[in-house]
Amino acid sequence: MTPDTPLAAVDVPGRPCSMAATLQVVGEKWALLAVRELLYGNHRFDRIARNTGAPRDRLTARLRALEEAGVVERRPYSERPPRYEYHLTEAGRDLVPLAHALRAWGDRWLVPEPPVTFTHAPQGHEEHPFDPAFVCRTCGQEARRGELHAEVHARGWSVEGPVDL
Amino acid sequence: MTPDTPLAAVDVPGRPCSMAATLQVVGEKWALLAVRELLYGNHRFDRIARNTGAPRDRLTARLRALEEAGVVERRPYSERPPRYEYHLTEAGRDLVPLAHALRAWGDRWLVPEPPVTFTHAPQGHEEHPFDPAFVCRTCGQEARRGELHAEVHARGWSVEGPVDL
Repeated sequence: MTPDTPLAAVDVPGRPCSMAATLQVVGEKWALLAVRELLYGNHRFDRIARNTGAPRDRLTARLRALEEAGVVERRPYSERPPRYEYHLTEAGRDLVPLAHALRAWGDRWLVPEPPVTFTHAPQGHEEHPFDPAFVCRTCGQEARRGELHAEVHARGWSVEGPVDL
Repeated sequence: MTPDTPLAAVDVPGRPCSMAATLQVVGEKWALLAVRELLYGNHRFDRIARNTGAPRDRLTARLRALEEAGVVERRPYSERPPRYEYHLTEAGRDLVPLAHALRAWGDRWLVPEPPVTFTHAPQGHEEHPFDPAFVCRTCGQEARRGELHAEVHARGWSVEGPVDL
């Protein structure tokens, strides 16, 4: 599902840009690390705080902002005392490619050995290492340097030549 | 090329994580927006400052940090006065999937109409809209909910069940 109306009203600096808009909503470090823990199945505040290393007040503020933006939802798991778990909404689960893109770059450029790897077990295939790539759905190929051209629809903002892949 | 040694020494909060490492090096908003402008072919400070809307002092600091981390390099274009352009290194250009992941999420969830779209023109194909999908290179399929399993190699840190795609 694509939403009929945007999830949140976002004011971006500089050129009109969806990348900048995403950064305004989920780009803060503790927000993305909280999303990571939700993807990893850790839904309770104490566990999220421990696994991210986030200061509790910062984490509380980021989870509230993510909830207001529609990325995270709270679900009660205890009535007395009232206690909540945090879960990703559909928009939140759609951050998986972003999480993999962040992880893949760090695996390649920053760590001696990947601390977490993934296996992929789709129906009809043996379980195998998950090796994520960005592929163009239209032609089924990975984009290579010089093959992508930007079309800017916002007036007064330009992009010079092919994208410098 | 994969580097023999990590690009930068990074200390991450919480669990050992390549995603957190990436956020430490390039996760700040102005850093990623500067990378966007370099991908768009805008290499000079004034243009980058205008197009990102970044405060000049913050942008100077981020570009210096990106240069120290090996993501950006400066190239002289004038000797008197000395002037430099900023270009992405190979590690910097490898941020393209991250840029597309950020943009795709914003296009889907935050903006009424995408302000920038891309066309893809690989050899042997007609130019067509670029529609990035996250595909497993090993099997050629997009990962769906419940199909990815994390293997944690760092001791003492767990992931609960399948990844909540």
